[in-house]
Amino acid sequence: MRLSRYFMPILKENPKEAEIVSHRLMLRAGMIRQQSQGIYSWLPLGKRVLDKVNAIIREEQNRAGAIELSMPTLQSAELWQESGRYDAYGKEMLRIKDRQDRPMLYGPTNEEMVTDIFRSSVKSYKDLPLNLYHIQLKFRDEIRPRFGTMRSREFMMKDAYSFDLTREGAEHSYNKMFAAYLRTFERLGLRAIPMRADTGPIGGNLSHEFIILADTGESEVFCHKDFVGFDIPGENTDFDSVEGLKAIFDKWTSLYAATSEMHDEAAFNAVPEGDRLSARGIEVGHIFYFGTKYSEPMGAKVQGPDGKEHFVHMGSYGIGPTRLVPAIIEASHDDNGIIWPASVAPFDVVVINMKVGDQACDDTCELIYAALKKAGKDVLYDDTDDRAGTKFATADLIGVPVQIIAGPRAVANGEVEVKDRKTGARETMTIEAAINRFVA
Amino acid sequence: MRLSRYFMPILKENPKEAEIVSHRLMLRAGMIRQQSQGIYSWLPLGKRVLDKVNAIIREEQNRAGAIELSMPTLQSAELWQESGRYDAYGKEMLRIKDRQDRPMLYGPTNEEMVTDIFRSSVKSYKDLPLNLYHIQLKFRDEIRPRFGTMRSREFMMKDAYSFDLTREGAEHSYNKMFAAYLRTFERLGLRAIPMRADTGPIGGNLSHEFIILADTGESEVFCHKDFVGFDIPGENTDFDSVEGLKAIFDKWTSLYAATSEMHDEAAFNAVPEGDRLSARGIEVGHIFYFGTKYSEPMGAKVQGPDGKEHFVHMGSYGIGPTRLVPAIIEASHDDNGIIWPASVAPFDVVVINMKVGDQACDDTCELIYAALKKAGKDVLYDDTDDRAGTKFATADLIGVPVQIIAGPRAVANGEVEVKDRKTGARETMTIEAAINRFVA
Repeated sequence: MRLSRYFMPILKENPKEAEIVSHRLMLRAGMIRQQSQGIYSWLPLGKRVLDKVNAIIREEQNRAGAIELSMPTLQSAELWQESGRYDAYGKEMLRIKDRQDRPMLYGPTNEEMVTDIFRSSVKSYKDLPLNLYHIQLKFRDEIRPRFGTMRSREFMMKDAYSFDLTREGAEHSYNKMFAAYLRTFERLGLRAIPMRADTGPIGGNLSHEFIILADTGESEVFCHKDFVGFDIPGENTDFDSVEGLKAIFDKWTSLYAATSEMHDEAAFNAVPEGDRLSARGIEVGHIFYFGTKYSEPMGAKVQGPDGKEHFVHMGSYGIGPTRLVPAIIEASHDDNGIIWPASVAPFDVVVINMKVGDQACDDTCELIYAALKKAGKDVLYDDTDDRAGTKFATADLIGVPVQIIAGPRAVANGEVEVKDRKTGARETMTIEAAINRFVA
Repeated sequence: MRLSRYFMPILKENPKEAEIVSHRLMLRAGMIRQQSQGIYSWLPLGKRVLDKVNAIIREEQNRAGAIELSMPTLQSAELWQESGRYDAYGKEMLRIKDRQDRPMLYGPTNEEMVTDIFRSSVKSYKDLPLNLYHIQLKFRDEIRPRFGTMRSREFMMKDAYSFDLTREGAEHSYNKMFAAYLRTFERLGLRAIPMRADTGPIGGNLSHEFIILADTGESEVFCHKDFVGFDIPGENTDFDSVEGLKAIFDKWTSLYAATSEMHDEAAFNAVPEGDRLSARGIEVGHIFYFGTKYSEPMGAKVQGPDGKEHFVHMGSYGIGPTRLVPAIIEASHDDNGIIWPASVAPFDVVVINMKVGDQACDDTCELIYAALKKAGKDVLYDDTDDRAGTKFATADLIGVPVQIIAGPRAVANGEVEVKDRKTGARETMTIEAAINRFVA
């Protein structure tokens, strides 16, 4: 992508409304724009990151056997009356009347709808286990949306729903998502710790929040410090292995970890003092097992091997991609801007032409740009006529992992400078060597 | 994907509510499910097709230089009051009040919002031309939604918006989208004919609808029959070439083609009788040039090379992916079901195990399934214990382009049968040959 043709409206000043660093940097880097209170556009740079986050979430959901569909944003009130949540949900639910005066709502979550889909077509235990997910916009009419897309009203959520014949089956489904979440966050460059959590309006009796530690986190969390070094399930994890996944779950729940709502001071004090970690955290995922809470009132049942009908045991599993993006920034930035983990960087590399119009610089940059694109890399080419200082500041701000800098002096020697955004290390090398670093 | 683990709720009976073949087949194949009037879930099979359609749209938008972002679904009423469309839009606009009683709406289109994004950050002609697009849900509260996702209330739209300094620049931007649309529909297996069209509530003075001919089309259209054989712009079309794109536009608008609203009987009668095509059509895309209709009331202007401020010239360009899927089916099906063009097929191939439990059949199918997956193909493996007849009917219904059929007799000879869904041609070949057909 040539920056001269791109749409990346960088802000020079710090926006006053941004209270936390991720919000500030997302605005400054031209990633998002507020359209109404708590409602954002994702501008091209932000959209790229969001797409990469979603791609990783999707890969790990699929690996764990979940199946993607897409449910609509608007739901009928009737469905929520069946479960009893229509009245219970309160003002965070955006209620709507259509032109025929039928009560609708903008879905804040999809337990009811997915249960309705399930009951209309699944009749036998032979079709279980089943896990259906979608990545869809949701709306929660927060009284005080804040921190940019960290807590917005219209937001994106990956929500998965599992259906099993028995509680034991449901626990295995829960463990699949538990392991998938560990893998997902790791691939996003985050160390998330599963903590026993309150079940809130979703309900149920088993629930974990996945929390990353960050000073700007909204909740206070308490855990054993060893979580920071625990192994993440590998790519070849057998999601069909009941014992294998149980072992992962047991390991990751063997030490103390709880959010403030579930905090047990006495249990925490039993952890050796040097091992206690008390910090602020950002919730990046939340999983629930809630048995037959929805299947009973909504009549979602299957015939079991015994020939009788059984209400299915369900769980739901949420990750908020539009919240993950700022969470990643909270965990990875410096004074100059964002430092993207390679897996979600909007571009793999930025090529900086320090003297546009200089034939040698232009030719060198075009050569590198073409070679890296051909190698399948996402490349941003800064071909604007901005000053070199502005270009460096922009490249640092938007956090692309590697910068290839072509200035007249180096280019005259057939060389360019390669800068690592994270460490700041710069290395001068031949043009060929710079290209080979990516193509090899 | 193993069918035994997939969620593809096939209907055995023809659903009564479906008036047109695409709606009937999408319901029968378990692609969609109605959740409320005119509001659908895309079940896994449908979601796969929708994703492939979107991927092609996206590739062609990017090729033409459009830049993707993502605007939210909910918009503030204020924005629409600025353009004057809030009152003009009528009951198709879903109006909402949030908990603070602020008037909002579910966006039926995004001219206002994108103009707002533009005016907040683009100040100079040097940043033009610019074309921003997104693929996002929209809502139009149709009084009579019908034909499944062909005319639904919540639907997906790719809408692009171009910004130029001058009318001439805007015409080039229009021609870019014109050529991109021709390419897009061709890749989707459709022959779409651009027809002069009414501009409706979007407004403006230049507009084309892209229409595919189909008996179940909602509008009556009139055109010269030679359109059916016109060349489509190639992959290497130079979208920067003003003359090149103008030539494509001129060629494709050189003969008579109009929807009924714009129909000119006299002009049509001037076409030699044998060349006249009068048929029913489905609108699959609509492009508009509307000059300064939004930029003036909303104050979207840039400084020109003359140092003065100029209102930008705009156009908008829409394609409805959720409508394209049924349109493709209308154009490509037979009595047994859907016949997907390879480019949008939910799976490239279905492997049918005619005797699950038979060791040789199982081994053969697993071998083929693994080999094709490894080759990067999307493979559906029918490993269910349904009868062979049911499996054949399902494979035909869901329209996967190629079926590889493994029955005990053929497998004993080291062979399988390969069936082309479209022609019905069957060919017996060695297992290796069947694999090589895809891997080669």
